[in-house]
Amino acid sequence: VGGSSSDLGEYLSFAEHLARSARRIVSERVERDDSHRLKADGSFVTDIDLLIEEVVRSRVAEAFPGHGILGEELPESRSASTFQWVIDPIDGTRSLRHRIPLFGTLIALLREGVPVVGVIDLPMLDRRYAAASGMGARCNGRALRLADLGDVAAVQKEVIAVGERRQFAACGQADAFDRLMSAHESVRTYCDCFGHALAIEGAAGAMVDYNLHLWDFAASEILTREAGGLFIRIDASGRSDRAGGHYDVVFGKPAVVEWVRGPLRI
Amino acid sequence: VGGSSSDLGEYLSFAEHLARSARRIVSERVERDDSHRLKADGSFVTDIDLLIEEVVRSRVAEAFPGHGILGEELPESRSASTFQWVIDPIDGTRSLRHRIPLFGTLIALLREGVPVVGVIDLPMLDRRYAAASGMGARCNGRALRLADLGDVAAVQKEVIAVGERRQFAACGQADAFDRLMSAHESVRTYCDCFGHALAIEGAAGAMVDYNLHLWDFAASEILTREAGGLFIRIDASGRSDRAGGHYDVVFGKPAVVEWVRGPLRI
Repeated sequence: VGGSSSDLGEYLSFAEHLARSARRIVSERVERDDSHRLKADGSFVTDIDLLIEEVVRSRVAEAFPGHGILGEELPESRSASTFQWVIDPIDGTRSLRHRIPLFGTLIALLREGVPVVGVIDLPMLDRRYAAASGMGARCNGRALRLADLGDVAAVQKEVIAVGERRQFAACGQADAFDRLMSAHESVRTYCDCFGHALAIEGAAGAMVDYNLHLWDFAASEILTREAGGLFIRIDASGRSDRAGGHYDVVFGKPAVVEWVRGPLRI
Repeated sequence: VGGSSSDLGEYLSFAEHLARSARRIVSERVERDDSHRLKADGSFVTDIDLLIEEVVRSRVAEAFPGHGILGEELPESRSASTFQWVIDPIDGTRSLRHRIPLFGTLIALLREGVPVVGVIDLPMLDRRYAAASGMGARCNGRALRLADLGDVAAVQKEVIAVGERRQFAACGQADAFDRLMSAHESVRTYCDCFGHALAIEGAAGAMVDYNLHLWDFAASEILTREAGGLFIRIDASGRSDRAGGHYDVVFGKPAVVEWVRGPLRI
């Protein structure tokens, strides 16, 4: 099956290659659609989503025919495989639709359910975050290393990124969102992969994101761990108010992650 | 004194020239400081702020010795002049300090207190928004025209940008922030000039920003008007809980601006 570090290096290169292909599709489509930018009917977003997922799936099937694929847009394939590629072709579709340049493409590889390769690509910011298990995390080639805080008082000087309030409201956790907003000086709804990327590179002290699917955070999990951060994943499937397969995640600098557990009551 | 459209054209070119100089200073400093990026003691931010304001002031004094200058960092000069340059060398210092790439430089020219030229420069996003009275608004040379919404139901499909909750709390308006957050699907704290820019180009339906100084919004006011949007400025100096010279602003697509007045109760 393959799982040595040289295999992981190969998988990481392949994931970055997939991200480059996705970025090319985004650039071409966004430019082509620019004349209609005020229409905002959103149909072109669906096109980009599907096109990227189809391209990624066909490349994976060709390169690694034994690997499974789980994506946001199309049915799962080979779910029993040891290795599974997990893809969100466009994370932040509402941002893309409105031309807010903070959306991206997420690609992760899981080995027996554990993320071992992760890539977050932010095409409009020209930033690509990439990590593989035991190989460290990088942004555009620069090594990422999350420095923890000297003391807990420094938490209030950090920026805390958070998903949109409606994600929390959708799972009965609007109060947790409101408590976090009131408890800290600088909580900002930098939703989707932009907030994830900020927490992974330490620009935000932590990212708090609720009611996610696996493809929304699998890349962030391995990126955070390889950058030396703390990643907490709460499987919310057991809660009465959730459908299966939804997760809440909190990650970033360990002291900040520990601090936010207070107002979130987790 | 000068105030014909050819003068305004000259002032606009000059303001864009100042923005280019500011951007050069930011690029040099941000790169130079990159080795210390995890220190985050913030002193380099103060350096950039002061340096940009000094450069802008000396250029204005040389080019237009009769004009006044009001900036965030240094004392006001020639406050009785017909024309006054209003500068925020770095809007979003907390973002700059944390390497969140959503800060910028704001430059406006007021004629008898009314903004007639405005520039917002976002160096890390490579975007420059520029407008002059009667001459339209542009982003990197592309004309901006805010399309209003077909009907009020479309308001919920927009993204609404808002400042940080602490700005509202500082002036006793935390409840207004909370009501807005609860009343709409997608309110995001895209604080500082990034949220302003999104509203000016129509990516966000509106920007809601409280407890500001004149230099925080003078450029946005003329940019919004020239893009065909609605700009509401509330002089909060009269309120018992405010120091003089503080303003609350709401601006963007007219239907969205009207809608947010409900939850804000303004």
